Amino acid sequence: MELDLQRYSVRTDLAVESREMLAGQEPVQIPGVVENIQQEDGIRITRLDVQNEAGAERIGRVKGHYITLEVPELRKGDTGLQEQVAAVFAREFEQFMQHIGLGPKSSVLIVGLGNWNVTPDSLGPLVVENVMVTRHYFELMPDRVAPGYRQISAVAPGVLGLTGIESSEIVQGIVERTRPDAIVAIDALASRSLERVNTTIQIADIGIHPGSGIGNKRRGLTKEILGVPCIAIGVPTVCYASTIVNNAIEMMKSHFAQETKQSGHIMGMLHDIPEQERLALVKEVLEPLGHDLIVTPKEIDEFIEDIANIVATGLNAALHEAVDPGNAGAYTH
Amino acid sequence: MELDLQRYSVRTDLAVESREMLAGQEPVQIPGVVENIQQEDGIRITRLDVQNEAGAERIGRVKGHYITLEVPELRKGDTGLQEQVAAVFAREFEQFMQHIGLGPKSSVLIVGLGNWNVTPDSLGPLVVENVMVTRHYFELMPDRVAPGYRQISAVAPGVLGLTGIESSEIVQGIVERTRPDAIVAIDALASRSLERVNTTIQIADIGIHPGSGIGNKRRGLTKEILGVPCIAIGVPTVCYASTIVNNAIEMMKSHFAQETKQSGHIMGMLHDIPEQERLALVKEVLEPLGHDLIVTPKEIDEFIEDIANIVATGLNAALHEAVDPGNAGAYTH
Amino acid sequence: MELDLQRYSVRTDLAVESREMLAGQEPVQIPGVVENIQQEDGIRITRLDVQNEAGAERIGRVKGHYITLEVPELRKGDTGLQEQVAAVFAREFEQFMQHIGLGPKSSVLIVGLGNWNVTPDSLGPLVVENVMVTRHYFELMPDRVAPGYRQISAVAPGVLGLTGIESSEIVQGIVERTRPDAIVAIDALASRSLERVNTTIQIADIGIHPGSGIGNKRRGLTKEILGVPCIAIGVPTVCYASTIVNNAIEMMKSHFAQETKQSGHIMGMLHDIPEQERLALVKEVLEPLGHDLIVTPKEIDEFIEDIANIVATGLNAALHEAVDPGNAGAYTH
Amino acid sequence: MELDLQRYSVRTDLAVESREMLAGQEPVQIPGVVENIQQEDGIRITRLDVQNEAGAERIGRVKGHYITLEVPELRKGDTGLQEQVAAVFAREFEQFMQHIGLGPKSSVLIVGLGNWNVTPDSLGPLVVENVMVTRHYFELMPDRVAPGYRQISAVAPGVLGLTGIESSEIVQGIVERTRPDAIVAIDALASRSLERVNTTIQIADIGIHPGSGIGNKRRGLTKEILGVPCIAIGVPTVCYASTIVNNAIEMMKSHFAQETKQSGHIMGMLHDIPEQERLALVKEVLEPLGHDLIVTPKEIDEFIEDIANIVATGLNAALHEAVDPGNAGAYTH
Repeated sequence: MELDLQRYSVRTDLAVESREMLAGQEPVQIPGVVENIQQEDGIRITRLDVQNEAGAERIGRVKGHYITLEVPELRKGDTGLQEQVAAVFAREFEQFMQHIGLGPKSSVLIVGLGNWNVTPDSLGPLVVENVMVTRHYFELMPDRVAPGYRQISAVAPGVLGLTGIESSEIVQGIVERTRPDAIVAIDALASRSLERVNTTIQIADIGIHPGSGIGNKRRGLTKEILGVPCIAIGVPTVCYASTIVNNAIEMMKSHFAQETKQSGHIMGMLHDIPEQERLALVKEVLEPLGHDLIVTPKEIDEFIEDIANIVATGLNAALHEAVDPGNAGAYTH
Repeated sequence: MELDLQRYSVRTDLAVESREMLAGQEPVQIPGVVENIQQEDGIRITRLDVQNEAGAERIGRVKGHYITLEVPELRKGDTGLQEQVAAVFAREFEQFMQHIGLGPKSSVLIVGLGNWNVTPDSLGPLVVENVMVTRHYFELMPDRVAPGYRQISAVAPGVLGLTGIESSEIVQGIVERTRPDAIVAIDALASRSLERVNTTIQIADIGIHPGSGIGNKRRGLTKEILGVPCIAIGVPTVCYASTIVNNAIEMMKSHFAQETKQSGHIMGMLHDIPEQERLALVKEVLEPLGHDLIVTPKEIDEFIEDIANIVATGLNAALHEAVDPGNAGAYTH
Repeated sequence: MELDLQRYSVRTDLAVESREMLAGQEPVQIPGVVENIQQEDGIRITRLDVQNEAGAERIGRVKGHYITLEVPELRKGDTGLQEQVAAVFAREFEQFMQHIGLGPKSSVLIVGLGNWNVTPDSLGPLVVENVMVTRHYFELMPDRVAPGYRQISAVAPGVLGLTGIESSEIVQGIVERTRPDAIVAIDALASRSLERVNTTIQIADIGIHPGSGIGNKRRGLTKEILGVPCIAIGVPTVCYASTIVNNAIEMMKSHFAQETKQSGHIMGMLHDIPEQERLALVKEVLEPLGHDLIVTPKEIDEFIEDIANIVATGLNAALHEAVDPGNAGAYTH
Repeated sequence: MELDLQRYSVRTDLAVESREMLAGQEPVQIPGVVENIQQEDGIRITRLDVQNEAGAERIGRVKGHYITLEVPELRKGDTGLQEQVAAVFAREFEQFMQHIGLGPKSSVLIVGLGNWNVTPDSLGPLVVENVMVTRHYFELMPDRVAPGYRQISAVAPGVLGLTGIESSEIVQGIVERTRPDAIVAIDALASRSLERVNTTIQIADIGIHPGSGIGNKRRGLTKEILGVPCIAIGVPTVCYASTIVNNAIEMMKSHFAQETKQSGHIMGMLHDIPEQERLALVKEVLEPLGHDLIVTPKEIDEFIEDIANIVATGLNAALHEAVDPGNAGAYTH
């Protein structure tokens, strides 16, 4: 049985998952990758700097800065926790902007990628609907804009199947005409773990790369293409059925190893083969039967609204000095 | 490791899946269960009569008549196939009504169970929005109703969490006041197989039983409770993550058995334990980690609209002689 | 030119408008009608008690208690004002309940009348989606309900054209099964003044009468029919084109009278004919041309959501002692 | 009483209404304006060519070609009539494109102006969702596009208040990157007559001008700005309250003139003053009281969906030779 392992590689858009997949094989410290993990009231913050090409290759991620907030409890719908996550997100995003050299006056174009007709892919458009835009005030009556506000514009460019145009091209056209200092692109992602779906937010200064996100972009949104820095905010909202299965087998392996010391006996050869090969096996079995669907939790309607609110509230507070997480929510629906 | 197998039994609302689970253990013919399978242009029609208590116990389903349409290609969004399925559904539903003794003049109350705010649970309310209701014409101007129409009313009673009242009680109150001859209840179901999600329609004369469907009813909609026959139409729109995993392991088992003659070697003990026990294993591993979510395909928004249209178009054609599948679609949105 | 004045009578569902129409003809005090007007931070509160049949006939309203909140600024979308109106509404509604003899433990069924597919008629269903229902907790685990909560259920029965059943009959069926102590019915109304649309809330203990509201009910929801008191909450969301025109002519009359002392000269016979006759004229002209449409402000989507939130927040605070206007909003979307 | 007549001029986006307002004063033939009216199965087709500046000034419309379809019965929701209007629209649009020199291979960018959150302003985005886009097939696999299809792309650029960017600028950016041969811009309009709302479709080769449509654009979409021809498709979906009143007074005037020969007596000075002055009067009275709202018929949700379907179906048939009105509907939702 010959397997095309490349084709079957684990599909994830999250740096923490790439890191995690090395966990078994790698030393605590991966050369070229600086990692810092902080736990704060149920929110796990992982700051990951991929500093050079060696590190990038090792971890399988583009060079850049990554911040991930993981909040397993987020799925319970607790309003208090949601506000707290928005506040932490605002703080981290603000620091991130400073870290990559964006000053408090730099203008920002927020880009909501995805398809508003496909609930798990509607995160970007939903965030765009809930952020405070101010650019038109700066354009039309610059003298009357109160201090503490930044110049913000926002668009939801739609998806290729509905527009016939790559979202990347639409954004490029808008950037050329409106000349923002930076882009913030929001996109729904695929995770390799069902547990992270709708509970994780990733911030990265690497932009959007072809093939990432749910909608399978063919062209990216990067500094190289757009001429200005592009910060990507991503939230996993879907999972492949195959990665759920693969992940479950992995969990069974550790579970039995711990409990019975005889996982090998229970799991047979499945115990010994490396993850990537096992995933290939799972996919080979599921795909011909049409079982390798992309799935999302049943409660996606509510989850996506909650997390879009968190991101929009956090962005409003981070981007405008005059707005803080306490009142930022008032600007969202 | 002690397992509560009852608690961990495979969750399915489909009779064909109950049948399928016996496939390994049972002879071709289960006593008390009459089965008839027909293949028709990509539509597999299974007619299953559970004739007595012995059969009911064996197969794990309430005594009654079950018809299932399985259309694997339905997920591809082909309008032509959708129309064909609506026509077959209309024909089968009409025969089913005759079979259980409902005449062409009997009045029907259509009940759309489920929650319109939760996309995979919104099938019932969506069907209700698209069926032709005529009862008010019969009430207000009985002389002017054209021949070929039946007296139809339709309600979407909502879910317990939004109304504070069991949908069963709401329906009972309406039945007592409006006295229909029969109930047709539409509900979104859970399947044990991701493949059947949004590709399968089940018709049964057993009504709705407590705990069935997505919304976990505490009281049923049955002839015993309502005093009139209740036909249930169900479409699986979700799956438990655990059943996806369990199903995948099952498929791997057959796959390797076929291919390498050494499945036991590859799968270890997983190969030998019975399905129910294996599912218990999977659940035990997934649940504490919050991984046993209920999931639905990413494209659920479109699927649910398509299948609601098929059911509504089919019902309109089956319930009114004056409507045929060709023009029935005109009455749906 | 013969006019059927009955047919052409001004269409309004608001007691304050009935009162207003008498303003020119009547003394300050109408016998059998006790009136009390209070101004409070931009909210005009009119309490009107129609005490006997003489008063009822005079004012053209059913005997009963009416409270109206008029908030002209409400249309500006100010969140602060919205919260204030919710608080005043909560206070008035609570007093109203005491006034008509409903104690703090009485159970309530909230009925959201109207059609969720017709934006200006969707007020009732929207309120139902945003009220806290608790009845199921009282039913399932009565010992564990915290003090300060009342037993609340809520339904949106739909409209005749979609269900084939009068909403009144559906509610009656539910009342007979669930036995609430009182009904609170929310309905969208027609106003005679565009100015009052989406800025006015009326509370009345008269229930819902046939022909009232947008959806033209044929049967009512009253104590006589339901056996329990029915409080109606109404918000005008539409206007007839003819009443806009008639109203404008009335305004022109006063305007010119004030400004030029020669309104009669400017307006001709239009100045002298009584309001009802003038409206008949206007309708006679508009109707054959299909101009007498029912209209709603362009911004209806936002208005209806805002006012539904105010009513739901106010009801939550008024019905549950444990909830106050400050935290009641948290329960609405 | 001094009136700023400019400010109070009748607000209409329809050429037929500009023409109509001259009807009393002008000869049958306005110099520089060629008019052709055709009646066809309940559809009134007016073709109006404003040929020179003199004509443009006279009629108060930009030089260009205008086609208007008026279908008073459209509001009744008859599916057959809707299909017929779509077919006539397709035919007229196809001829219009030829007339202004666009060949069958010219590529088109469809622009849906307006705000999807404001029902009467959502026409443009709704049409965009329902047109067949093909540009990506031409880009990605030009050899495999079947003959009979044109290169179509489509965007809904949003509104200034939600994006912070003029829709004109967004479109300009996209045009510069994707280089279509022509633009087709769809916009919801204001009419001076309630009767025309949702029953009229205007096609014009003048593009979109600042201040037109519901959303009050500050910059236009014209050939001068975009470098390529821009065809505007407009449907009136709203009316000012003041124009309803003014129109009604006008109708009353003709009505009484016809019926009693004494309109002057009935209407007083209102009878004699010119339309523009009368409108100024009406506005002066309504505005300070907040009564001059923009209104839309109560049934706007259904109307807007129906008319968006007609326009999208018509465009699909007109733009692709391989699509005809009979099958074009299949591509819309």
